[in-house]
Amino acid sequence: MTDSILGDLLNRSQAKILLLVFDGLGGLPRPGTGKTELETARSPHLDRWAAEGATGLVDPVGPGITPGSGPAHLALFGYDPIGENVGRGVLSALGAGLEMTKRDVAARINFATRGADGNLIDRRAGRIPSDEGRRVAGLLADGVRIDGVEITVRAEKEHRAVVVFRGDGLGGDVTDTDPQATGVPARAAEAHVDSPAARRTADVANDFIRQAREILGGEDRANEVLLRGFAGWNPPPSFREKFGLRAAAIAMYPMYRGLASLVGMDVLPEMPSIEAEFEALPKALAEHDFVYLHIKQTDSAGEDGDFDRKVSVIEKVDALLDTVDRAAPDVVMVTGDHSTPSLMKTHSWHPVPLLMRGGHTYVDDTREFGETACRRGALGRFPSRHLMAQALASAGRLDKFGA
Amino acid sequence: MTDSILGDLLNRSQAKILLLVFDGLGGLPRPGTGKTELETARSPHLDRWAAEGATGLVDPVGPGITPGSGPAHLALFGYDPIGENVGRGVLSALGAGLEMTKRDVAARINFATRGADGNLIDRRAGRIPSDEGRRVAGLLADGVRIDGVEITVRAEKEHRAVVVFRGDGLGGDVTDTDPQATGVPARAAEAHVDSPAARRTADVANDFIRQAREILGGEDRANEVLLRGFAGWNPPPSFREKFGLRAAAIAMYPMYRGLASLVGMDVLPEMPSIEAEFEALPKALAEHDFVYLHIKQTDSAGEDGDFDRKVSVIEKVDALLDTVDRAAPDVVMVTGDHSTPSLMKTHSWHPVPLLMRGGHTYVDDTREFGETACRRGALGRFPSRHLMAQALASAGRLDKFGA
Repeated sequence: MTDSILGDLLNRSQAKILLLVFDGLGGLPRPGTGKTELETARSPHLDRWAAEGATGLVDPVGPGITPGSGPAHLALFGYDPIGENVGRGVLSALGAGLEMTKRDVAARINFATRGADGNLIDRRAGRIPSDEGRRVAGLLADGVRIDGVEITVRAEKEHRAVVVFRGDGLGGDVTDTDPQATGVPARAAEAHVDSPAARRTADVANDFIRQAREILGGEDRANEVLLRGFAGWNPPPSFREKFGLRAAAIAMYPMYRGLASLVGMDVLPEMPSIEAEFEALPKALAEHDFVYLHIKQTDSAGEDGDFDRKVSVIEKVDALLDTVDRAAPDVVMVTGDHSTPSLMKTHSWHPVPLLMRGGHTYVDDTREFGETACRRGALGRFPSRHLMAQALASAGRLDKFGA
Repeated sequence: MTDSILGDLLNRSQAKILLLVFDGLGGLPRPGTGKTELETARSPHLDRWAAEGATGLVDPVGPGITPGSGPAHLALFGYDPIGENVGRGVLSALGAGLEMTKRDVAARINFATRGADGNLIDRRAGRIPSDEGRRVAGLLADGVRIDGVEITVRAEKEHRAVVVFRGDGLGGDVTDTDPQATGVPARAAEAHVDSPAARRTADVANDFIRQAREILGGEDRANEVLLRGFAGWNPPPSFREKFGLRAAAIAMYPMYRGLASLVGMDVLPEMPSIEAEFEALPKALAEHDFVYLHIKQTDSAGEDGDFDRKVSVIEKVDALLDTVDRAAPDVVMVTGDHSTPSLMKTHSWHPVPLLMRGGHTYVDDTREFGETACRRGALGRFPSRHLMAQALASAGRLDKFGA
């Protein structure tokens, strides 16, 4: 991989880069029109940028893999979304809107069903509905108490939840308790390195599990918790270290603020609206080399299956893009973290439209920004995690490799 | 790679998947018309499916690599065709139409030429014609006898053949005897792990070689055998384990039946005709999550250089596709294991047309199934081994990765 040489090639160029992320941008064609949300939207700014630059498609994680926002954003930020050792617990905690500190260890919870003999009957508690998941997560949040440890439990979807243990001397090197089989008991959490922090955290986790069994004793289905993906706050190399960029994040939702903070971006104060996000852009660009601006509402509309609303979010943002033209970043990238087709009402694995403009970006014959046009664009189709290197190159921030 | 996460994402969807494989489907354009076999064929069903779904191109093994049916099928089935530790001997045995059991060890044979001093003169026996290869393979099959071991020798092409040793306590951990050089003697087979099975098999192999030298002593060219690629029956993780699919195979030829069995598919009884293969489909689909249906005749026509016959096989199959429409699998994939252009009369490395339809497959603007159209399809061009993940995704069988 080129990751190993990138650091050596960084030069002192001051060119500025904007990454505009429409969450869940990619869509599927609406039967009847054959056009996706992006293709349906009237977006004269985006179409002009596509004409002035080049388009392509990016794959967030891999063929057929539907990513959550955590891995999808890590990939856009230039990190390996599978191999990066951020910790599944941390991504879940960020996804659940929890902020993490260096004193925290997060783990994913699966509610499960345990028989009278103590053996597991169902590792997913019959995939209880999300309502029930929220209720039992609430019981744990209210009921579990451990000396010297602050405990936060937050439900995710169905049988999944996340717990964050906050306290001194905790560490993420703890084994999963899910035995990956039924007919056997859950495992105890164990330190998988020989450190006081790991041993202390395993004790805390086992105490949590013991209390959870008491609290959930009367439940038909969710009467057991399996913990996995223990992880402390262990950020990867920062944007500054990796790409030589002072980076700022403009994002309204906790997950994205958390991810930006994970990679060492300056996270601007929360904004009340999309308009406010764009108003904050010129100053952020003036003070940084790189700005990540996140639009959540395309994803929300897609998740709701509201094709027209997703179209109108894109149109609304397009109407604000004069601000970008005026702030004049050297290189602009517009893409999504993943697809969220309104027709599916959920994230999907389909590749995501990308446009890049400015600097030494190739100027292709694409005249609009949409899935079909992007399929034929000069940037081709490639994994999202290779986007950052191409942005740095277009911005003139990378020297030649070898003589 | 995403292989490491796929297992965790499998859900309980019951959506059914059909993989229809035209062996050697891909072709080269006929001078004069500029159309390949597939583009020449009148195939209204396939064209309609292309219109209702999306197309693309798959690469079986890698750039410029012409695959045999073994690796090509492993890739279609979602396995790494190079790294998967199936064993070259096993693939050769399956390719030669031999069935294998857990008591078997297979090895590839190269007939070679040995001088009076015992050193190798030609490691391929002057690439003897296939007729001669069959004759000397027959001599070994009739002549070699080893106590407690059943020996099957089958000629492949030219100087190549395969031997299967069947008996108790055999194992595949045995070194090649080919020294990869001339002017030196063949090596003895040796156990490369310290196990009784490996030592026993090395002894059996060396006895086989000793007897072969006696039997072939009068041959001018093929008077020596080099053994390599020793392998026991060591199936990779099954389709069920890897993809959560109960899979069935409808295939007439031993190679494909063997490959399907290798990955744990239920192999249906042999069918007398293509028509019978399609008649068996509805029941197979009703009783399984995944059906692989194999059409050999496109490859045979391509190998014979018979462009028109390859066209008419495609047309004949197309006329049977009403059966598929009626059986209504949720996701249909149509592709080849590799290309066999009639103009080349042999397998080739050219990418293979793919169509996918149903579930949440993208609906692109492709209106026909052919190499040129597929090059512009929404599925793009990708390694065959990534097809299964996309089929599972389109069928709704994969959960989201990460939050």
